[in-house]
Amino acid sequence: MPTPPHGTHRPITDADLALAAELGQQLRVDSVRSSTSAGSGHPTSSMSAADLMAVLVSRHLRYDWDNPDQPGNDHLIFSKGHASPLLYSIYKAVGVVSDEELMTGYRRFGSRLEGHPTPVLPWVDVATGSLGQGLPDGVGVALAGKYLDELPYRVWVLCGDSEMAEGSMWEALDKASHYKLANLIAIVDVNRLGQSGPTELSWDLDAYRRRATAFGARVFVIDGHDVAAIDQAIAEAGDLTGEQPTVVLARTRKGRGFSEVEDREGWHGKPLPPEMAERAIIELGGERNLVVRGAMPEKAASRPAADGRAEVKLPGFERGQKVATRKAYGDALAALGARPDVVAMDGEVSNSTFADEFARAHPRRYFEMYIAEQQLVAAAVGFSVRGYRPFASTFAAFFSRAYDFIRMAAISQASICLVGSHAGVEIGADGPSQMALEDLAMLRAVHGSTVLYPSDATSTAALVQAMADLTGIAYMRTTRGAYPVLYDAGESFPVGGSKVLRSADDDQVALIGAGVTLHGCLAAADQLKEDGISARVIDLYSIKPIDTATLTAAATATRGRLVLVEDHHPEGGLGSAVLDALAGAGPTELTVAHLAVTEMPGSGTSEELLDAAGISASHIADAARRLLA
Amino acid sequence: MPTPPHGTHRPITDADLALAAELGQQLRVDSVRSSTSAGSGHPTSSMSAADLMAVLVSRHLRYDWDNPDQPGNDHLIFSKGHASPLLYSIYKAVGVVSDEELMTGYRRFGSRLEGHPTPVLPWVDVATGSLGQGLPDGVGVALAGKYLDELPYRVWVLCGDSEMAEGSMWEALDKASHYKLANLIAIVDVNRLGQSGPTELSWDLDAYRRRATAFGARVFVIDGHDVAAIDQAIAEAGDLTGEQPTVVLARTRKGRGFSEVEDREGWHGKPLPPEMAERAIIELGGERNLVVRGAMPEKAASRPAADGRAEVKLPGFERGQKVATRKAYGDALAALGARPDVVAMDGEVSNSTFADEFARAHPRRYFEMYIAEQQLVAAAVGFSVRGYRPFASTFAAFFSRAYDFIRMAAISQASICLVGSHAGVEIGADGPSQMALEDLAMLRAVHGSTVLYPSDATSTAALVQAMADLTGIAYMRTTRGAYPVLYDAGESFPVGGSKVLRSADDDQVALIGAGVTLHGCLAAADQLKEDGISARVIDLYSIKPIDTATLTAAATATRGRLVLVEDHHPEGGLGSAVLDALAGAGPTELTVAHLAVTEMPGSGTSEELLDAAGISASHIADAARRLLA
Repeated sequence: MPTPPHGTHRPITDADLALAAELGQQLRVDSVRSSTSAGSGHPTSSMSAADLMAVLVSRHLRYDWDNPDQPGNDHLIFSKGHASPLLYSIYKAVGVVSDEELMTGYRRFGSRLEGHPTPVLPWVDVATGSLGQGLPDGVGVALAGKYLDELPYRVWVLCGDSEMAEGSMWEALDKASHYKLANLIAIVDVNRLGQSGPTELSWDLDAYRRRATAFGARVFVIDGHDVAAIDQAIAEAGDLTGEQPTVVLARTRKGRGFSEVEDREGWHGKPLPPEMAERAIIELGGERNLVVRGAMPEKAASRPAADGRAEVKLPGFERGQKVATRKAYGDALAALGARPDVVAMDGEVSNSTFADEFARAHPRRYFEMYIAEQQLVAAAVGFSVRGYRPFASTFAAFFSRAYDFIRMAAISQASICLVGSHAGVEIGADGPSQMALEDLAMLRAVHGSTVLYPSDATSTAALVQAMADLTGIAYMRTTRGAYPVLYDAGESFPVGGSKVLRSADDDQVALIGAGVTLHGCLAAADQLKEDGISARVIDLYSIKPIDTATLTAAATATRGRLVLVEDHHPEGGLGSAVLDALAGAGPTELTVAHLAVTEMPGSGTSEELLDAAGISASHIADAARRLLA
Repeated sequence: MPTPPHGTHRPITDADLALAAELGQQLRVDSVRSSTSAGSGHPTSSMSAADLMAVLVSRHLRYDWDNPDQPGNDHLIFSKGHASPLLYSIYKAVGVVSDEELMTGYRRFGSRLEGHPTPVLPWVDVATGSLGQGLPDGVGVALAGKYLDELPYRVWVLCGDSEMAEGSMWEALDKASHYKLANLIAIVDVNRLGQSGPTELSWDLDAYRRRATAFGARVFVIDGHDVAAIDQAIAEAGDLTGEQPTVVLARTRKGRGFSEVEDREGWHGKPLPPEMAERAIIELGGERNLVVRGAMPEKAASRPAADGRAEVKLPGFERGQKVATRKAYGDALAALGARPDVVAMDGEVSNSTFADEFARAHPRRYFEMYIAEQQLVAAAVGFSVRGYRPFASTFAAFFSRAYDFIRMAAISQASICLVGSHAGVEIGADGPSQMALEDLAMLRAVHGSTVLYPSDATSTAALVQAMADLTGIAYMRTTRGAYPVLYDAGESFPVGGSKVLRSADDDQVALIGAGVTLHGCLAAADQLKEDGISARVIDLYSIKPIDTATLTAAATATRGRLVLVEDHHPEGGLGSAVLDALAGAGPTELTVAHLAVTEMPGSGTSEELLDAAGISASHIADAARRLLA
């Protein structure tokens, strides 16, 4: 048995028990009231976990509710985000949300009490509601706490039993035990009922116990409605002296406390009709307005991440030298590591993405996430919660594994940097499974994202540095092969800009590319010049935001003749970005050739595959000639 | 201990042992030779698993190599797809690929022996190479075998140890044990070394055993280079009398058999230089040309799925009646279930997607996948391998969880139907975590995909039926709320078509929408009519392929004045699809208003959120007026 917790916890008294039980009932009543008033929401999923949260919040959570930014605060994440009525009822119980706001705001337009929690609320770290994400996010926060902040806060995550079917929950426990995160506690509300019927494992708490134990957690199995048992388990769980994450498996009853719905199917995600709600409130002992606050955290100094900004000396590259942009990423990231807030992680391909350069230079701030891309992105989100600037890398194709996490990271208002290597058919022999051909579309569609696609080492290094100061989801696509450096060190590459590499007053056509295709555009312009055709060449290193002014100027100069070239499927990538920008800029007449990867590629050399896809220099030149014919 | 296997297996003799050992060495030699000749590939990852595969293929796999379509054949899936040299060396050893093809084709341009296996080869069921997918795909094949085909084939999946860090592997084992898939055998090649360093669990086979056991598998732990031990484990694993999937954990050594690389770091994904390869071949005992075939499967009749086509009577809807397209999906799918090849599954939200109607009508062909979207899509891929037509549904937002699986499904040449409900801000109070606002971009970017977005119940039903005969990845987006039926039963909706709902010779502007925004376009056209403005309205129910002719005609008629409206982020969706189509159709002058969801939505009613996003009828009408101003 683990040692009892240190810190402020004292043995529970009968009065404490009674208060926790009362608070549990209040949370239930308020969950019913708020969801009934809204006409939607998940009261029954809230009622099952009410006792767990009542004990946690009144006795164990160390949180300065008036100062959510206090660095020493514990973290409370509702991985089962649909239990938002419970969370918001807690906010009422600790006095930071009024009963009026709860009753008139919940799920209403313009209110901060959204259907699922988002960080528009100062006490919410991450958006949840896509199940299986709160715990992985919590792993990131706990990693920061143990290894970077070195603060004794705990990360409490309320999980649903249904979401234990998500593989991401097991990625999270795996990483939590690998990194010995005793500061992470998952409290699983095993209420047996999912949305459309019973869960896969129902009340087989032994099965959950075997799984969580096998994944390296310390496990407590309790009756989730026995406040004394809850108190003991949570007290022990909150102890930071061990080396294992904790999973508290609580057997609960959905809709607990109201006999008409308790443990019954058919009541998921349904508010009680008003007359039922009235009966429920009576059965639950009526409305209460307890205000209960638990322990305060120890005062902590400001976060290490917030400490100043170091001088960053970016690597320099010689013009003409052949350097892969992925290599430039590694060089630049290692340099950027002079900033104490920069953290890096990778999905076990750091010798391909070159994140290993950061790992060697700053081993304390590098976290290997192994082949678990969902956890990779979730960890980045967690670091972001604690004010760090995470860079997460893997093959660009494999970020598709974590798209739901990236989408949710945007809702979480996380600022994270994702860098995907091995883009497009350019990678060659490995074949289509390793080729990112959808990543630009995928990342452009994320709210508030930035999408960068540099063509050379100098611009890569500059943009890596720029990424570290962006808000939201920043994505960079890098290329496997080495291509000539195009720019001198010191050249500036504003996000949202572009570079015009060839230009004349009599340009007849503009060739627009990025990454490997920009080099094709340059070669094509040379070929066209021999035919007497003057071609403008634009390096569109910033796909989102995009340099509409330069594109419009090019369209005007060339009477709308544009060749758009990308190592990506035709949908949603560079070509779409250009067309969207020009359409948004006002009336334009365009005559466009859009070269992209339309057939399923196989293996081969870079040259063979670029040519077969119709995006090599000769195809670009041909397309330009056709536009002028 | 499980009972010994039935069937064709006989006890191993010394001669068998010697043959298997020889075959293992041959597979190693050929893995070295092929990858060295190609100058790329993963010989060491092949060498660790060579003995496992030698025993499996020579003694246990029941496969008619000359008839890969024989319905009774076992399935062999390389979840660790990077061990393609081993797989192709097996193909040589069974005599279906020549040594010449192996030596001159591997990883070469135009060859079917791609860097990672794809079904351009007749013996490959699914593309692998994105780790953690072969086993989930195998679950789908095994589900088909046990519950639909009712054939005694086994599904053997060779897994890497690195990929056990992917949550999807645990989703797969979870489902395999839930569905009692004794016909699924995962053979895990625990060679301890990943790409950039040691794996998370190294050779801790006990940890793997605890995890796999906890997830419900029967587990054997063996020395993966002891052919007798392998034979015994695989013989027992192949027994179909139990009710558990099997996991064979094989302790192996990466690069086994060549002392210069065996169990050494730094040799992942690297071919041996020619002179090293020569030494390796000598140490491995030289080249061999054994041709070894194992047992044949019992002759099986053609697959039930291939049996005829039943008459499908689609549900009819009355014009003007309010019906949610998600409800029409459920109605249509239940009707389509008259076809014996149609299978449905859902991610535990079947009462929201209305897949539950199919579940009630055809319970034997409905598979609940619980909240595990990766496994949901992978199971669909597996059913597709066996000739079924799977329909997989969940909230559209949550398909983002499975994007890597969808991308790989396209490379796998799978024909699967995905149906995502609750699209866009229209869903209302649940908030952004539940709103699909990236799904059109995500699905359009998939190679060869079809993307459908019906606005009413009649078109939904017709398109659901059409989906069942499409090739590749077919996606339908459905809407939460109920809107008027627009079309009479019997109206036809060809994929790639559209409907012009309002049209006149003097149309000054065209309003183009789909789903909920089409209803906004219709209302806007009515408003505009009151101002004397004639607006064309187009129902763009087929986003990919797209009806370029109708769009071009509209652009011509309206002098390029188009209002594009979508309940989606601005990137990569309906608007992009229209602009791409028009750009591809030749020179056009456009004056476009693109209305899409540009701000992060919160909660509210459908009407409030559509209006706040600027995509409601009044905004559409205003945009049209501005284009005409």
